This record gives sequence, C-alpha cells and structure tokens, in this order.
Amino acid sequence: MSEATKATNIVWHPGNVNREDRQRILGHRAATMWFTGLSGSGKSTVAVALEKALWDRGIVSYILDGDNIRHGLNKDLGFSPEDRTENIRRIGEVANLFTDAGVMNLTAFISPYRADRDKVRALMQPGDFIEVYVDCPIETCEKRDVKGLYAKAREGKIPEFTGISAPYETPTNPEIVLKTGDLSLEQSVATLLSYLETNGYLKKA
Amino acid sequence: MSEATKATNIVWHPGNVNREDRQRILGHRAATMWFTGLSGSGKSTVAVALEKALWDRGIVSYILDGDNIRHGLNKDLGFSPEDRTENIRRIGEVANLFTDAGVMNLTAFISPYRADRDKVRALMQPGDFIEVYVDCPIETCEKRDVKGLYAKAREGKIPEFTGISAPYETPTNPEIVLKTGDLSLEQSVATLLSYLETNGYLKKA
Repeated sequence: MSEATKATNIVWHPGNVNREDRQRILGHRAATMWFTGLSGSGKSTVAVALEKALWDRGIVSYILDGDNIRHGLNKDLGFSPEDRTENIRRIGEVANLFTDAGVMNLTAFISPYRADRDKVRALMQPGDFIEVYVDCPIETCEKRDVKGLYAKAREGKIPEFTGISAPYETPTNPEIVLKTGDLSLEQSVATLLSYLETNGYLKKA
Repeated sequence: MSEATKATNIVWHPGNVNREDRQRILGHRAATMWFTGLSGSGKSTVAVALEKALWDRGIVSYILDGDNIRHGLNKDLGFSPEDRTENIRRIGEVANLFTDAGVMNLTAFISPYRADRDKVRALMQPGDFIEVYVDCPIETCEKRDVKGLYAKAREGKIPEFTGISAPYETPTNPEIVLKTGDLSLEQSVATLLSYLETNGYLKKA
C-alpha cells in the first residue's frame, strides 16, 4: 500500500457512531437526573434505589456523588461559594458527557445555588436535564443526621454548611419534586420511574 | 407510616449496583483505551473507527477528545505545562468514572508528558488503563497536517506545539503500539480488537 493510500485512510470521520446509535444498543433515552436538596434529604439513598430499579429492567445507570467526585475530579476544590460553583460546573460537564454517551446518570449533590443548577440545565439539550428537588424539611434532615454533620455544623465545626450557615436556594421549576419526608423510598422510586416512562425515557415495564 | 419507619427507610445503601453488575448488562469488561501520540498521528481517526467496530458488535463505547473536553469540562485550561497536566488529570478522572460505569472509553489526546499519563494509570485499577501509543513519524504527521496546525506552528503562530516547540515523551511500556505510518486503518482496528479479545475485555467475535 503506497504512502498516499495510507494517508488517505487516515482521515477524520466525525461521529460515525452518535448518541442515538448508542441509545439504540442501550434501550433507553439517556438523561441526567439531577438530585438537589439538603444534606440528609435522601438524594443518594433515592438515587441508589433508582439505580437498582433501573438495573432490574436491564438499564445501566451511573451515580455521580461526593464519593466519586470530591475524592477524584474535584479534589482540588473546597466549599467556598466560588469552589461550589466550579464543583457544580464540572459535574454538569461530566453529566453532559455521560448523557451524550447514552448513559442514564444520577447526580446526588446538594447543589445549593439556583444559578449553578440553571447553568447545567442550559448546557444540556432540552429534556436531558431532569431536576429532582428532594424536598425534605431541614428539621427532618437534622433529626436523621445520619453522618452527624448537622451536629458538627451547629457546633461551628463545619463552616458554610448548607441550611445552617450557607444558603440553599429552592428550585423554582424542577421537573420532579420528591417530598421524602412524606414518601417511602419505594414511593419515591415509583414516582421517578413513572416520570421516565411517561416522558419517553424508558419503555413501560 | 410513622416518622421513625420512614426515617429507617432512608438509609444509605452503598453500591447496591456495582461495576460488575453493570458490565453484566453491557456484555464486556470496561477499560480506558488511552491513545497518545503527536498531532496528526491518527489517534482520533483510529478511535472513531474502533468505536464503529465495537458498535457493530453491540458494544457501547465513548470517545473523550478535544472536541468534547476542551470546549466543556476543561475550557478554563490553556496549553502551558501546568494546564496540560491539569487537563490530563481531569480527563483521567473522567475516564476512570466511565470505566467504573462499565463503559469502554477511548481517549484521544496528545498527552505528551509521561508523568501525566502514568498518574492516570496509577489512578486506575490494574487492567483498566490500556495505553495505546500511536507511533507515527513526525515527518508523516507534518506532511498530512490535516488541520494545518504544523504549518502554523512552524510559523510560530501556535506556541508550545508538541513536536515542534514542546516535547513529546514517548511511552516506555505501552500496552499497544500502533505504527499508523505503516498500518492501514483496518489493520490498526484489527490490532486493537485482537488485544481486547485476547485479554478478556471482549468476547471473541
């Protein structure tokens, strides 16, 4: 094979395989389910239960949360307003990549600032960003205090703790509101699955 | 349902669905195929062709490249040595997330510094990082100059251009060497598929 022929072989083919092709293999329409709410509101718990329910249907999803982001990609960031904004910006970009890859992804971060969440929404294509407001009264979150964080925050040992010493800005127009103080975990998952089915992300079970 | 019961429902269940579970649905073992080499060596071209070959087998893969990373997650970074290092660090973390999600992911970045690539390797579990050295003589790359970048670099219009005014550090122990100056695109893809089959990432076709 001559050099010319070989050089001709090596030509940029943009996007031979696209998102729709990937989704055809995966059997669903991808999206980012963006869980937002106070510490202890149940974001991770609901996301983990949803992940299992999706897996039971043969759907691969992936959770982005503090464990795999704060210790990795964003380990250079703290909790100042600027760093929280950069934290959410990067997570939004990663979520967008996962969505483009065709993977249903669930993000579980307090993400307290409305402007930051709206920037992620604006980054994505219509329908790709499903804001799930995990709406649980702070009294309930604080009573649970699974990780003992509220107690430490009240003692001033954690600065800029959302709901205590830093603001949480309630979503104005989320796709889904989950009142986890009232709903059982099963009911929360059923609500999410119903949304995904009704809006064409998943085939009906 | 009492508050106590509800609160009991909302308990952290770590990793109900794990990587092995996801891979079972997806039908392969995930990995990061890390293409490294000069501009114009064929990294993206080979990655795109491999993506298509994988798709033909029902395998979803995803390419991380300058188009979807430099314009998104890493749009705050330039091309200084520090920024290149941070660029590769973040890409490595994202690749690690994709691998954990069970998705075969292909990264196509010059990634000129050995230390940066080795840090990504160290981040991942054994076998998750497949370094593919796209080994093409700079004369061939420059002759192709698909994007006209070498011409601009020679004119001094692009500072810190790898191979011209910035170093490229050859991999010392890559899993795969692809001599794209000698191989056709089909031969390159066949080499990669053969590696993936032989090493248990893919079932034999």
